[in-house]
Amino acid sequence: MNMLDIIYKKRDGGKLSNEEIRFFVQSYTDGEIPDYQASALLMAIYFNGLDREETYLLTTAMKNSGDVIDLSEIAGIKVDKHSTGGVGDKTTFIVAPIAAACGVPIAKMSGRGLGFTGGTVDKMESIPGFRTSLEKPEFINLVNNAGLSVIGQTAHIAPADKKIYALRDATATVENVSLITSSIMSKKLASGSDAIVLDVKCGNGAFLESFEQADELGQLMVDIGNDDGKKTIGLITDMNQPLGNAIGNSLEVIEAIETLKGKGPFDITELSLVLAGAMIYVGGKASSMEEGRKMAEDALQNGSALEKFKAFLSGQGGDVRVIDDYSLFPQAAFVKHVTSEETGYVSGIETRVVGFASQHSGAGRATKEDSIDMAAGIDLHKKVGDEVALGDVLATVYGNDLAKVELAAVELKKAFYIHKDRPQAIELIKKIIV
Amino acid sequence: MNMLDIIYKKRDGGKLSNEEIRFFVQSYTDGEIPDYQASALLMAIYFNGLDREETYLLTTAMKNSGDVIDLSEIAGIKVDKHSTGGVGDKTTFIVAPIAAACGVPIAKMSGRGLGFTGGTVDKMESIPGFRTSLEKPEFINLVNNAGLSVIGQTAHIAPADKKIYALRDATATVENVSLITSSIMSKKLASGSDAIVLDVKCGNGAFLESFEQADELGQLMVDIGNDDGKKTIGLITDMNQPLGNAIGNSLEVIEAIETLKGKGPFDITELSLVLAGAMIYVGGKASSMEEGRKMAEDALQNGSALEKFKAFLSGQGGDVRVIDDYSLFPQAAFVKHVTSEETGYVSGIETRVVGFASQHSGAGRATKEDSIDMAAGIDLHKKVGDEVALGDVLATVYGNDLAKVELAAVELKKAFYIHKDRPQAIELIKKIIV
Repeated sequence: MNMLDIIYKKRDGGKLSNEEIRFFVQSYTDGEIPDYQASALLMAIYFNGLDREETYLLTTAMKNSGDVIDLSEIAGIKVDKHSTGGVGDKTTFIVAPIAAACGVPIAKMSGRGLGFTGGTVDKMESIPGFRTSLEKPEFINLVNNAGLSVIGQTAHIAPADKKIYALRDATATVENVSLITSSIMSKKLASGSDAIVLDVKCGNGAFLESFEQADELGQLMVDIGNDDGKKTIGLITDMNQPLGNAIGNSLEVIEAIETLKGKGPFDITELSLVLAGAMIYVGGKASSMEEGRKMAEDALQNGSALEKFKAFLSGQGGDVRVIDDYSLFPQAAFVKHVTSEETGYVSGIETRVVGFASQHSGAGRATKEDSIDMAAGIDLHKKVGDEVALGDVLATVYGNDLAKVELAAVELKKAFYIHKDRPQAIELIKKIIV
Repeated sequence: MNMLDIIYKKRDGGKLSNEEIRFFVQSYTDGEIPDYQASALLMAIYFNGLDREETYLLTTAMKNSGDVIDLSEIAGIKVDKHSTGGVGDKTTFIVAPIAAACGVPIAKMSGRGLGFTGGTVDKMESIPGFRTSLEKPEFINLVNNAGLSVIGQTAHIAPADKKIYALRDATATVENVSLITSSIMSKKLASGSDAIVLDVKCGNGAFLESFEQADELGQLMVDIGNDDGKKTIGLITDMNQPLGNAIGNSLEVIEAIETLKGKGPFDITELSLVLAGAMIYVGGKASSMEEGRKMAEDALQNGSALEKFKAFLSGQGGDVRVIDDYSLFPQAAFVKHVTSEETGYVSGIETRVVGFASQHSGAGRATKEDSIDMAAGIDLHKKVGDEVALGDVLATVYGNDLAKVELAAVELKKAFYIHKDRPQAIELIKKIIV
């Protein structure tokens, strides 16, 4: 088998065989194929695409390039959830306890990473005492006993993805639906759960802006999940404004707790209920997503989801008193309000600008070496459709570095569009792909 | 300026600016851009193409990556000739003396290279005593005195092409008309001549098989030559069978001498007259290609071309007695005939198979380290359209390694198609692009 022949074949519109795809993935991961041939193939794929079968073969070859986690010691249908990423997305902390409260075991591995805030693992570390690094037996025991655990990714998951993604990032070959699918799904399929709920964001704060692109990606990811024998559901959801009001690490955990108490903002509550409903359904505990959603509502109302959250915290060493005393979270020394200079309605929010303001306040890393200010971030007081008067506070910036907080406030102000007319309502959940 | 932005631009169908193209060529040649980004750009160019202006800018950036030869010490319009390569093409040895005899100075640099036979420089070295490595002053003097000189390429010509070509070869990005044009023309434009005649081959022995592809390449190369201020003419010519009868090093030089004596095969004589006519025309010594061709015919008939060839040999130290005594060339110890097993007409020749048989007889290099057997090669007795009877000799293989000669003879036999009906005549010169 010869890499040059594989490039020629894809360049000329051919369909790659299982052998060819596995040869590329394995040999490239092993350092036997030079980067310049891999990038030429990726660009040929960018132009000529991969069909569903090729995408499935690529995804499984990447999944099999490293450890594939065995969760068979956990009874029941384990369900994973993945979001393509947005600003203010703290649904994991809400949907995992809800689903667990409804009998769906959640054994989730999450990442750190760069971005507007820390990753899920970073956010959890804002809880005093919380351990994100558990050995596998403890992780398994916790899921079997408490119903859920979320830990940092320690296993050697899909190393092919790491290497291929770094190359794509440097060669303008990121934006291809099959390559994105293989990157996301190889890691999900290697993580050991039996069913998956995908939250594909679209809008001005999402990786994919248009609904059509998100829909195409969502459909393909759902197909690939199902092709691998894991029941998979995809939601296309709005990211034309941050999700909820809080953006940051401890700020988001606090908002998640509020939501578990039934006092969360409407959008984060609604999305969490739909996601959790889908998880309960693919986890076999409800006969439909609608029934799953009703069970999720009950778990919020009767406090069982909050109890699961408490068990989760306590199981991983976290101080459960934070649930009732937010002052136990890291606190910000500086607070800066951003006020409106106009009267009218918030007609739009530049979500990415809010994200960068959050990062610049100290909440997110720009490079791997950056440290995170757990207390830093943004609290939005107004969202799209809200009425504002001159001088109203639009948002508040928190942080422990005054210069950063002030810089973030200046940026944040530019994110708000105020218009005299009330705008159309944003549709939060745009499509469900079953 | 950023290489990633350049890849994105071309990937998305944009037009690259002069600055962007020069940045890529210069930085890549200097080792400041990694191979994996260069190959991604080349694949994006493969798919989205370069327009005429971009091709011109790429070509000149590559030309300027190394030495640009100054031939201003030679009086008159210096004319270069280039062939895209085929089997049995020894026209340089014929057209250079003809053009020189008609007053057109020829100061040509040629290569060695891999292939079915040696390159022009290798072939010349089959002439006892002939020196292909002259210092520039001697080269210039020889052209000014004898009217022509052909030497090996010693200067640092278009290093960008060398590096980019090696990468294209390993990444399936060779077959793009703009990239081929930039590769060929960057070297031609750096070589100092004032006008260029291009012989673009098409057919089963050519780099480009179809007329349409050859025509597209020819047109673009002619455009780029003219864009650079060098009068350029392109011929699209047939390579569906070897040119002439001889394939090899000394064998081809001998056939060239025979042609200069007016006793060459029809096809090589005809093509040489048209090429030389074009060279005389672009060299300003004739008012049309037709007039140039008549002057070329005269130069053959009156012996002035052969005299120029003698002056060329003697100027570069070659033994001029070879012109009348071919036994002074390296001789083959082994000779093997290939005979026909059928009666009918030669209906086709697999030209590439003949080429490989020539290489395998010892006439060409497969790798840079291989040595060349100057006496090895093939003499065709029958060409397309010729009648053959059972047992007739189709071709003879020469060489100094019996095993190689026998192997080549076995291969060569497979190159001939014999059919009972006389085939259509092959059109030698398919198009002239002015």
